[in-house]
Amino acid sequence: MRLTLAQVNPIVGDLDYNLELIDRVWSDHDATSDLIIFPEMVLTGYPPEDLLHKPSFIEDCQKKIEALLDRGTNRSSAILIGAPVMQNGLLYNAALLIDGKTIHKPVTKHHLPNYGVFDEKRYFTAGSPHDPIDFRGTKLGVMVCEDMWFPNIAEHLKENGAQILISLNGSPFETGKQSTRLLQAKFRTAETGLPLIYVNQVGGQDDLVFDGASFALNAQGEVILTCKSFEEDIKSYLSGHLEPSSSSEELIFKAASLGLKDYMRKTHQKKVLLGLSGGVDSALVAAIAVDALGSENVHTVMMPSDFTSQESLEDAKECAKRLGISYEIVAIKNMVETFTKDQPDTSGLAHENLQSRLRGLVLMTRSNMTGAMVLSTGNKSEMAMGYATLYGDMCGGYNPLKDIYKTQVYKICDWLNKTRGNLIPDNVLTKAPSAELRPNQKDQDSLPPYETLDVILHCLIEQDLGIADTIKVGFDKSTVEKVARLLKIAQYKRNQSPPGPKITPRAFARDRRYPIANGYKE
Amino acid sequence: MRLTLAQVNPIVGDLDYNLELIDRVWSDHDATSDLIIFPEMVLTGYPPEDLLHKPSFIEDCQKKIEALLDRGTNRSSAILIGAPVMQNGLLYNAALLIDGKTIHKPVTKHHLPNYGVFDEKRYFTAGSPHDPIDFRGTKLGVMVCEDMWFPNIAEHLKENGAQILISLNGSPFETGKQSTRLLQAKFRTAETGLPLIYVNQVGGQDDLVFDGASFALNAQGEVILTCKSFEEDIKSYLSGHLEPSSSSEELIFKAASLGLKDYMRKTHQKKVLLGLSGGVDSALVAAIAVDALGSENVHTVMMPSDFTSQESLEDAKECAKRLGISYEIVAIKNMVETFTKDQPDTSGLAHENLQSRLRGLVLMTRSNMTGAMVLSTGNKSEMAMGYATLYGDMCGGYNPLKDIYKTQVYKICDWLNKTRGNLIPDNVLTKAPSAELRPNQKDQDSLPPYETLDVILHCLIEQDLGIADTIKVGFDKSTVEKVARLLKIAQYKRNQSPPGPKITPRAFARDRRYPIANGYKE
Repeated sequence: MRLTLAQVNPIVGDLDYNLELIDRVWSDHDATSDLIIFPEMVLTGYPPEDLLHKPSFIEDCQKKIEALLDRGTNRSSAILIGAPVMQNGLLYNAALLIDGKTIHKPVTKHHLPNYGVFDEKRYFTAGSPHDPIDFRGTKLGVMVCEDMWFPNIAEHLKENGAQILISLNGSPFETGKQSTRLLQAKFRTAETGLPLIYVNQVGGQDDLVFDGASFALNAQGEVILTCKSFEEDIKSYLSGHLEPSSSSEELIFKAASLGLKDYMRKTHQKKVLLGLSGGVDSALVAAIAVDALGSENVHTVMMPSDFTSQESLEDAKECAKRLGISYEIVAIKNMVETFTKDQPDTSGLAHENLQSRLRGLVLMTRSNMTGAMVLSTGNKSEMAMGYATLYGDMCGGYNPLKDIYKTQVYKICDWLNKTRGNLIPDNVLTKAPSAELRPNQKDQDSLPPYETLDVILHCLIEQDLGIADTIKVGFDKSTVEKVARLLKIAQYKRNQSPPGPKITPRAFARDRRYPIANGYKE
Repeated sequence: MRLTLAQVNPIVGDLDYNLELIDRVWSDHDATSDLIIFPEMVLTGYPPEDLLHKPSFIEDCQKKIEALLDRGTNRSSAILIGAPVMQNGLLYNAALLIDGKTIHKPVTKHHLPNYGVFDEKRYFTAGSPHDPIDFRGTKLGVMVCEDMWFPNIAEHLKENGAQILISLNGSPFETGKQSTRLLQAKFRTAETGLPLIYVNQVGGQDDLVFDGASFALNAQGEVILTCKSFEEDIKSYLSGHLEPSSSSEELIFKAASLGLKDYMRKTHQKKVLLGLSGGVDSALVAAIAVDALGSENVHTVMMPSDFTSQESLEDAKECAKRLGISYEIVAIKNMVETFTKDQPDTSGLAHENLQSRLRGLVLMTRSNMTGAMVLSTGNKSEMAMGYATLYGDMCGGYNPLKDIYKTQVYKICDWLNKTRGNLIPDNVLTKAPSAELRPNQKDQDSLPPYETLDVILHCLIEQDLGIADTIKVGFDKSTVEKVARLLKIAQYKRNQSPPGPKITPRAFARDRRYPIANGYKE
């Protein structure tokens, strides 16, 4: 049987686009396939969130399924797609096999993830474990995403005669996720002795990035085919080959780049602008934007104040030059002076924030004038600590670094410089980080060194450790307590921050839901 | 048996505070009670969200339960409290009866709500329907919140000998909720013939407000006791009396007021400031703030531009005077001039937003200097339409009107003026709404009349209707399509807006989870 893995990039809610996407792949591969396998919920894109609560949305999905049935009448190949299906007033996350004039009985997802970024029990009813689909004499053991992560569904399929396992997925990227998926798939082949095909969605959707990286295992559990990461990729099961593996820096860079690219495309925007400070964060964001959108769509603004060093300005210019992007210089001096003349008591933190907010104002005004979207550039370490100005440098429609720790930012820049030419000037990478909002300010005046901070944050956030257990890892009590306190009180800022791509196993927002008013001491 | 309803206001995560709160009520009512009934999850406050994922948090909860057991040793009364309980590695939402040296077997919640604002399947395992607790010879049929909303739990309890039904709740306010709860409770008494006691949490928590309004029904389903709405209230079952009922305007005003009051108290803040424009929204927010925090804690700033009418300035002053709050006037003229001199191409929408953002900057700078939190004042109609400036008038830590439609804003002002003296000047209520960001601007230049708009929004948001069905209600096609489009594209703004109290059955954010990148046409 000729099977095709259709790793495609649907758009959430855009049923017309998704229908045509499915149809185009179907048409292109009709002559060379018996069955074309699409990702989970390919018809709606994933996750459609509360669109699933709109009866008209579910009805429109049903109409598209009927349209696909029409289009398949004269095709020789069949398709297996993911879509929401309403049965007796209950909604299921289903896989549908459309073959000629027939839709087989929907395979409904049994294990509904309701943790991390997933809210599937908000929307769907759990289906019962189902029997294999008899497709032209072959028994297909079809599983929807999470159903592959537990032994019981594959076991049931095997016991009922399945000859191959096929898994449809909407599995978002996080570091280490690819090997975890592969491990689970290998468990299932080891338990059943069946080959397994894993097809994942690709593309960015708000704060999620689906990496694709679909694959196939033979009955011995050997990887015989892999699809590309972070790109659409249509591969035949029989003639499949293996993509080279990537470093974690490359994967993170590509995740951030695709996240931004798709956020822009799917919200019908083309151009971005950002403040280039001469620091490492804005330099990396600019590099990501160039990769995602092309240098012609990235504009930068340098906004020096009295505290901006000549070194920073030079570094920023050099950065823009190497990336081939336009830049302009808008001094905020006059505005700071007018503001502080009218309000002479502005000092301390208020004066620091004033500078940051005036820069935000300059960027947002340019955004309103040109239609370019502002990118914000705060990394995860800063977002965790609230080391950013609300309505200042936090202004923006998207933040590519939101879930990337500062120490990772440096590693990604190193990887970029090694593999793509020296895009980030050395001086940007070697000087001490500074917000330059007061004389001789350094990040490390307010925060522990990032090498320490990032490990403490990893303990508190990704590992969910309490303060006592974090101290036991080997840190100073007062440092851990300070970090935990700042992490807690910055929740209100993060709640008003723009989206950015999930990179770690515990991204802020959808993945880590914390109260703002929170009396817990850690 | 002497039963006491302890409608209290716990703080999410503040286990020490909640322990002392329980202990104080226990101690105060020990001599006059056999059993004191507290709300669902009173030990943690509700909802604790992902704090429940921290093992140290669950351990700390267990320690507090042991502390309560210690304190109860010499008390004659028992307590029934809500708390998370870990059993065999699984977490339950439980009710615990502590009587002398004994904790009865936990009653675990069976029906876990995972819709609307609730995510309980993210955290808890569903308990099995449980038998009544034998408490000093009386069989108590204990139910945790949602368990009262289905017949099967009460039925099981009745069949197993329950003599009274007791329901512990963390049920947030929305308009109409009080009568819905009462109706469900009456169904249960009608089905079982048992009296029922309903104890709800009171207090604000981020974007939720728990209204309390606990009550008791006799075996005939008659209301024999009600507790106050939006206040702590401890009442004895035997000597209970009925609180007068309130208009929906009063309930909404009190919900917004308590939401703000508790947000401030639970985040350790005291003072607020806001821009007073002379319009109805900021006037109502000021009145809510005075009610919540006292006039001495509310400061207002009038920030006229070239487009601000003398009428607006007079209305704002009169408003501040009637509310007894301080005000100052900070013209933004010089800042607008400096900005536009440096950047002479600033025009149109960018120029309108510039004014709004400079006002936000003035408020945020004052906030940084004084520690007072900024209130934002956009109502639900504006938040729905994106008729607000991101980083401008959307600046703020809390927005009391976030879930209150414009037409409701007027009604609440009328109610205020009738019941509390003429706090809002008539002219504020009768003139046409305007943002005053360009000459002769009126809201109705950009939006349908609010009487029309709010009904269309209600159809699209609260009723989840599609465009076609909304038109059928009796609206113009192009108007509905425009409203639906604006509602969709403003999602990115709402995602960066401050929290505000849930008032309607479908508040933005936690209650209505929509993608930003959303290709669905409606």
